[in-house]
Amino acid sequence: MSAAATQVITPEALLEHWQGHRRLTRRLIEAFPEDQLFTFSVGGMRPFGELALEILFMGAPMARGVATDEWSYTGDGNPRPKAEILRLWDEATEQIDTLWAGIPLERFGETITAFGQYTGTASSLLFYVIDNEIHHRGQGFVYLRALGIEPPPFHERS
Amino acid sequence: MSAAATQVITPEALLEHWQGHRRLTRRLIEAFPEDQLFTFSVGGMRPFGELALEILFMGAPMARGVATDEWSYTGDGNPRPKAEILRLWDEATEQIDTLWAGIPLERFGETITAFGQYTGTASSLLFYVIDNEIHHRGQGFVYLRALGIEPPPFHERS
Repeated sequence: MSAAATQVITPEALLEHWQGHRRLTRRLIEAFPEDQLFTFSVGGMRPFGELALEILFMGAPMARGVATDEWSYTGDGNPRPKAEILRLWDEATEQIDTLWAGIPLERFGETITAFGQYTGTASSLLFYVIDNEIHHRGQGFVYLRALGIEPPPFHERS
Repeated sequence: MSAAATQVITPEALLEHWQGHRRLTRRLIEAFPEDQLFTFSVGGMRPFGELALEILFMGAPMARGVATDEWSYTGDGNPRPKAEILRLWDEATEQIDTLWAGIPLERFGETITAFGQYTGTASSLLFYVIDNEIHHRGQGFVYLRALGIEPPPFHERS
């Protein structure tokens, strides 16, 4: 058995795991009423559009930093049309796939500093981005339910 | 470099990642007002107490199944005092630590069927449990904010 086969999770499986979560988040953005995306909120929290943009603007820049050690974050949470968010989302999907192919296995365990301020192993930083997406998307599920709309199924990632 | 060193994430790091999330969820349970735990809801969703019990009753049984191939799920979402939930939580924390030590590296990549119905690699099933915890805990964050209480910080896992 090769070393690559004895992995808790392979790089390929982690990418698919992340992109599966991103597909679900994309469906939640699609399901959200456009006129509520940057206005509706529960408990004084940020509207889902802002949360979705945070998720969007963390993903590809984190993958780029892990792949190339070039760190740049240029996102903002300003309101945008849903179609533009989805377009940027799809661009980021392709960027993440392309960048991922340039991450060697040994990179995941290296301790790095992301965006000049977050230090940890590359894998822990990637998991932070994925977990932050799940966390805020779960909040978006509540907003959508509060708006009387059924969210997409959590277990469906294809 | 040994095979164990070139991991996307080692078994030990994944356990610490999970237990870090479980510590955060425990803090959210602690912060939730006892009289709202099984009654308060947003958008017709389940109260946070039920979500917390689902998280609790999935964790150790999944770790046990991965470690021993013995699958049993005996949980229910019936209301309980917060102190009892936290006691069960702490018992599960120890069980997960103990069970984890019995999971060999090659087990994580094996395709298994959990609880007689969910098929995937052991690692994908473990990640499903962790992700489900993050998802429902994120919903608990909204409930707590809607109750006017500030949740514990998301990034704090120690």
